[in-house]
Amino acid sequence: MPFQKLSGEDRLIDWLRSQVRGGHLGDDAATLSLRESFAITVDSQIAGVHFPANLDEARFARRLLAVNLSDLAAMGAQPRFAFLALCAPEGFRQRAFFRALLKACAIHGVELAGGDLARLPLGGPLATLTLLGTRRPRTRWLKRSGAQAGHTIWLSGTVGESAVGRHLLAAGASLSGRSIRIPSRFAGSARLAKAARAAVARHLEPRPELALGEWLARRRAGGALDVSDGVARDLHRLCRESGVGAVLDADLLPSSPHYGDLCTLLKQDSLDLALSGGEDYVLLFTLPKGIRPPKQFAATCCGEVLREGSIWLRQSGRTRPLAALGWDHLADAHAAHPPTTD
Amino acid sequence: MPFQKLSGEDRLIDWLRSQVRGGHLGDDAATLSLRESFAITVDSQIAGVHFPANLDEARFARRLLAVNLSDLAAMGAQPRFAFLALCAPEGFRQRAFFRALLKACAIHGVELAGGDLARLPLGGPLATLTLLGTRRPRTRWLKRSGAQAGHTIWLSGTVGESAVGRHLLAAGASLSGRSIRIPSRFAGSARLAKAARAAVARHLEPRPELALGEWLARRRAGGALDVSDGVARDLHRLCRESGVGAVLDADLLPSSPHYGDLCTLLKQDSLDLALSGGEDYVLLFTLPKGIRPPKQFAATCCGEVLREGSIWLRQSGRTRPLAALGWDHLADAHAAHPPTTD
Repeated sequence: MPFQKLSGEDRLIDWLRSQVRGGHLGDDAATLSLRESFAITVDSQIAGVHFPANLDEARFARRLLAVNLSDLAAMGAQPRFAFLALCAPEGFRQRAFFRALLKACAIHGVELAGGDLARLPLGGPLATLTLLGTRRPRTRWLKRSGAQAGHTIWLSGTVGESAVGRHLLAAGASLSGRSIRIPSRFAGSARLAKAARAAVARHLEPRPELALGEWLARRRAGGALDVSDGVARDLHRLCRESGVGAVLDADLLPSSPHYGDLCTLLKQDSLDLALSGGEDYVLLFTLPKGIRPPKQFAATCCGEVLREGSIWLRQSGRTRPLAALGWDHLADAHAAHPPTTD
Repeated sequence: MPFQKLSGEDRLIDWLRSQVRGGHLGDDAATLSLRESFAITVDSQIAGVHFPANLDEARFARRLLAVNLSDLAAMGAQPRFAFLALCAPEGFRQRAFFRALLKACAIHGVELAGGDLARLPLGGPLATLTLLGTRRPRTRWLKRSGAQAGHTIWLSGTVGESAVGRHLLAAGASLSGRSIRIPSRFAGSARLAKAARAAVARHLEPRPELALGEWLARRRAGGALDVSDGVARDLHRLCRESGVGAVLDADLLPSSPHYGDLCTLLKQDSLDLALSGGEDYVLLFTLPKGIRPPKQFAATCCGEVLREGSIWLRQSGRTRPLAALGWDHLADAHAAHPPTTD
């Protein structure tokens, strides 16, 4: 007698095992032997909370990986293994999801080594990814606790653009296959429309700063974290862990093209959004004075670490306390991605 | 200026850091250095799918850990580190959940080393736990692929009881604090009521077979997995990975007290439920002939591994093919725990 017809789950796992080299899939747990120290991070992505509920499976998969890679970038780790827990509703296109996930994993040298599949009765999809990254030779871990008084504060990219993208989606921007459609009121010029599309793309598929994380880990200097909940809140976290204060220069915060114009059209305060919009997935880091990251990383110096434990915002020559505003994962965040009609 | 009032998420993480020794919480990722090989497993638990939607936070936490520990038991691993992704609706009592989780972790020597918190807009709660366990000295990993022709097949405990508990919950059994209430038609005698309560407790809080897993890993013999989706389906999996067949003796399947009586009252076929009810979280394993596990593990021999790749069920002297029936996580499983009214 041949084996019984396999169940849906077993068939999917068989297919995955045929797609993934490494041979870790299929047992109750994946077994690994590593000589290096390693870092483990876990992050969930929930439809309707972190991304629009109607996002296609491929973009969902890439976003899930990117957000988790960003945590490894903030540690200076080399991404190695992924473990996926996928909770998906009926009709979810599992293979489209996994094809995109495996492709993105391959780009970053990540092997899918285990996971769990479940059917979600309500809402969804949502997924939790566990990533393991190893410490490269001659690097140290980047830590939130590494900031020291006198260090300069840097951002590896623009802030607020992802939040603009989120607001554009709430205001009617939509996806049509690979292209992004922008409502005409945000597309007054070709350049504005381009900036709007870039903001939506940035929101949906952030780019983890892995190369910069590696450079920082080799420098063995400063504190770092990735900006997921807004510069303001994440700067507070960096300072708390380091036992220092900081002054952030609002006028030096890097912003994307037409950022101010799009904020005006969206009736959003551009500084508020830059400080607390969240999901920028750039690195916020500190360096001893006189050290600058190579130009290729396009990082911007925008503040200074203080000995005293207060956190300030300097704008047009005036200085005021900087509140730790930003995304709170336990606050009522479900309005972030209201159901869209497209 | 003092630090701003912390957000709900940061406050909870601060509290967790005060409760957990080890110091891995608080950075973008937990960093570890291990000399031993290790195993990583990931499993989700979803309200309304894996357990009743109205289950209290403490039982939810213990079940989450137990189910994941069962995977480590099936590898023969020593549990070490946990990473939690919790997606909970408004009103979820985070601290009650974490208190129970940390207590259960401490019992098993597990350190909560990282995680992620998110608010779930619809349904829930659900959680994904990633567990890391190390290989003990002088053991080898237990694998599904270790079964060999001529081995005896063993179960470390009774099967079907957890499914009886699930059916009892659907039929009106309910929780009142720590006690379990059984509808009177399943409590015709004190012994029957006791068996019914035990079935519900078994379903809600399975006991991972860690000590047996360790013993098997020291024996360096046979194949093993934990029975999460039913003996029938999981025996098929064991045999596929090992490239062997098997004959399972229905008359020897271990069952709990009054199992048959409860199946009759629930209008369930007792053999079907034993074979495919699932969530037994006992170990299904094979051993070379002549080797028996110590009596303390109360394991039962109930079959034999065959060279040829077919899987049979022997009952009352007759032998027929054993179908790979059981829990399919991608099938329509949302009726497993319909909303209860208590």
